[in-house]
Amino acid sequence: MDATRLQKFLSDSARSATRNEIRELLKLISRPDMISLAGGLPAIESFPVPELEEVTQHVLEEYGAAALQYGPTEGDPGLREQLIGLLEKDGNTNVTLDNVLVTTASQQALDLCARVFIAPGDTVLCGLPSYLGALGAFAACGAHLSGVPLDDDGMRADLLEHRLLALRREGIHPKFLYLVPDFQNPAGVTLSVERRHEILSIAREFDLLIVEDNPYRQLRYTGETPPSLGSLDRDGRVITLYSFSKVFCPGLRLGYVLAHPDVIARLVLAKQPVDLCTSSFNQFIAREYIIGGHLWPRLERTRALYARKREVMLAALEEHIDPDWGVRWTEPEGGMFLWMELPKHLNAKDLFQRALEKNVAFVIGNAFYCDGGGTNTLRLNFSYPSEDQLVIAIKRLADALSDLVRDEPAPQSAPADVKGFSEGLVSGSDHALTYLPLSLSLHEIIE
Amino acid sequence: MDATRLQKFLSDSARSATRNEIRELLKLISRPDMISLAGGLPAIESFPVPELEEVTQHVLEEYGAAALQYGPTEGDPGLREQLIGLLEKDGNTNVTLDNVLVTTASQQALDLCARVFIAPGDTVLCGLPSYLGALGAFAACGAHLSGVPLDDDGMRADLLEHRLLALRREGIHPKFLYLVPDFQNPAGVTLSVERRHEILSIAREFDLLIVEDNPYRQLRYTGETPPSLGSLDRDGRVITLYSFSKVFCPGLRLGYVLAHPDVIARLVLAKQPVDLCTSSFNQFIAREYIIGGHLWPRLERTRALYARKREVMLAALEEHIDPDWGVRWTEPEGGMFLWMELPKHLNAKDLFQRALEKNVAFVIGNAFYCDGGGTNTLRLNFSYPSEDQLVIAIKRLADALSDLVRDEPAPQSAPADVKGFSEGLVSGSDHALTYLPLSLSLHEIIE
Repeated sequence: MDATRLQKFLSDSARSATRNEIRELLKLISRPDMISLAGGLPAIESFPVPELEEVTQHVLEEYGAAALQYGPTEGDPGLREQLIGLLEKDGNTNVTLDNVLVTTASQQALDLCARVFIAPGDTVLCGLPSYLGALGAFAACGAHLSGVPLDDDGMRADLLEHRLLALRREGIHPKFLYLVPDFQNPAGVTLSVERRHEILSIAREFDLLIVEDNPYRQLRYTGETPPSLGSLDRDGRVITLYSFSKVFCPGLRLGYVLAHPDVIARLVLAKQPVDLCTSSFNQFIAREYIIGGHLWPRLERTRALYARKREVMLAALEEHIDPDWGVRWTEPEGGMFLWMELPKHLNAKDLFQRALEKNVAFVIGNAFYCDGGGTNTLRLNFSYPSEDQLVIAIKRLADALSDLVRDEPAPQSAPADVKGFSEGLVSGSDHALTYLPLSLSLHEIIE
Repeated sequence: MDATRLQKFLSDSARSATRNEIRELLKLISRPDMISLAGGLPAIESFPVPELEEVTQHVLEEYGAAALQYGPTEGDPGLREQLIGLLEKDGNTNVTLDNVLVTTASQQALDLCARVFIAPGDTVLCGLPSYLGALGAFAACGAHLSGVPLDDDGMRADLLEHRLLALRREGIHPKFLYLVPDFQNPAGVTLSVERRHEILSIAREFDLLIVEDNPYRQLRYTGETPPSLGSLDRDGRVITLYSFSKVFCPGLRLGYVLAHPDVIARLVLAKQPVDLCTSSFNQFIAREYIIGGHLWPRLERTRALYARKREVMLAALEEHIDPDWGVRWTEPEGGMFLWMELPKHLNAKDLFQRALEKNVAFVIGNAFYCDGGGTNTLRLNFSYPSEDQLVIAIKRLADALSDLVRDEPAPQSAPADVKGFSEGLVSGSDHALTYLPLSLSLHEIIE
């Protein structure tokens, strides 16, 4: 058995899940002096180690063997009771146990949504750009991804409607719309309240489900929290995914889903052959962590930590990026990322090569575009590096950019004023993905 | 959105994953006086609570935040080093890190094998009967299941070859053979050494992969341990799945896979969109549990516990089941189950109804047959109930059986001497599964 002989045994989806060059490039990131802005990792200093020492001891002493047994696929009822509390605090009303499913982190929820709703060839709508792990989960089930551009207010509702009309003319009814409304990964932008209502209205008009992915929602550092799509939904078409990875810690692999009971029942059936149930031990820990009152104080400290890091990165960009270079970036009100656009004639891949030579790394934005666009964009993470590292990293990035701008001057005709991301792609083609950089997952592009 | 309106959004596999009557029946099991032999749960008294108090505290004090971060998809390298040690102890040679993948329990490994190898319509070979969670994982990816009968020495190699020849005539090349060689779930039988060699030779001849599922292998109470198929494999066609659920505890959701590096690489790519990585915290705990020397002493105690329970159940069966009833059962050398066959004219479903009235439950064997056979069989679990409960449960089962035998006498012609399971099905039809009782998973049929 070798890789060649193995080919004939592979399923279609396995065959298309090939490694890519980005992964190879990113091996360079492991060099000792490298500072990586590429990852999507929470800061290790945000993790509640002392609280967990107390809580795990309590779980084992108080519940013992019960915490180590198989549990219900739906999740521990005691944890789900606590989650109802969190969901009500986030503006959701009339939440019952039947509306809540515990998942093995929200990546599993994405996979379950894919398995329940996507048959090979089905169309799924997503942002341009979108979270890579979601695109990977949808593509693994054979989804055709149709991208709708974002701007500083999140997904463009007008372009979403435009796309849906075009699809309708082709007789295509997309299965769902995938959105990260708050502090989007990768773009860092938040969907405006007005657009939330518009998009819900469009979803009703075109009878579309919405998968609302909310991993960063509680990580707001400035501005007002808009209502979630789930809390505005009146006809059970929104499936909202929450994660403990960014507000507690990723190492327990815990997330949860809020949806109509019939949707939850389907997700439960899909979860059984996948992992039977999420770790009881970790669910007991999360439950007692919430009951013990640890969630909110710790989250407050995490928010303060990230708010400072965000300020440091924005200040460093302001200081080191020459306005004449024609570079712009988002100023996210929360989350872990900001998004940078180079002038259209520059390629982020070229910047990446130069940046690596200067010992700083980021993710090339193109990886997040299901239509192959975004070649002039990049994602910068500010949650993981220390404040000192952020300053040095941005200085190095500015040096690399300075060299690139010098070596590749803009063409004679001045570029049009840029108002949204990837404007050139709005009327562009809409390719099915036969290939996705699945291997470029959160934790592999760090360190 | 209601169940009816939801239908149109569902993928084909979601649409076929319907709830079944067994699930409804099993709700009866929650009655207070019920003793359930239906589950597949380890005994809670086998769980290493004091060891885990020590180990989790050590992990948090020693490794702190590192144990709470995302980890590599392949699994924590330190844990994988320890797994190499376990695998070498089990007769495997030249195992490297590249041969080992940590999974979110072995149910995930089954799902990953399904995703990597099965395209809708592909044929997979399995035992008659087979572990339901495996059938569910394969069916969710659209597998056509082709069953090969077992007898007291495990899968019938002659019938496997017979089936493969028949499939070859139809131009069908099965993707893999699924086997639980040791103390099979549900039948409790172990594949003989001779048959292990025969089956490997058949796999070579027909160029077949083998998925060897070994969750119970370390739970042997009597007899000699035969070599695993993985350790006998010379051409990288065996994928061996191990689980910590039965030898440590299920609540951490940890398992591991031993396979050729190219197979592991494929499973890793498939795992990324599924859950990114298995819980770092739980992996650190398992690693330190093994390093701390807790695994083997605890396993020794678990084996002694289950050996006694097995003796108690076998003795109670001997005492209470009248030889004239024509009932036979397996005497497993390990694991958690034994298998009972009623005379062919009796239906285990009728026994189930009567047993519930007498406050004892089991799983109807038919659920484990992908071809709809095994209507006269049942699975009895001896790991979970206490010894006292086992005695009472078997007494109740015998009462129910006595009533059934009295009410439904055998037809005039004496039944043929029974030498293997489901003999009547050998030449029977080989149905594709359009429906599987997915909801009947381990933990739902207990308590």
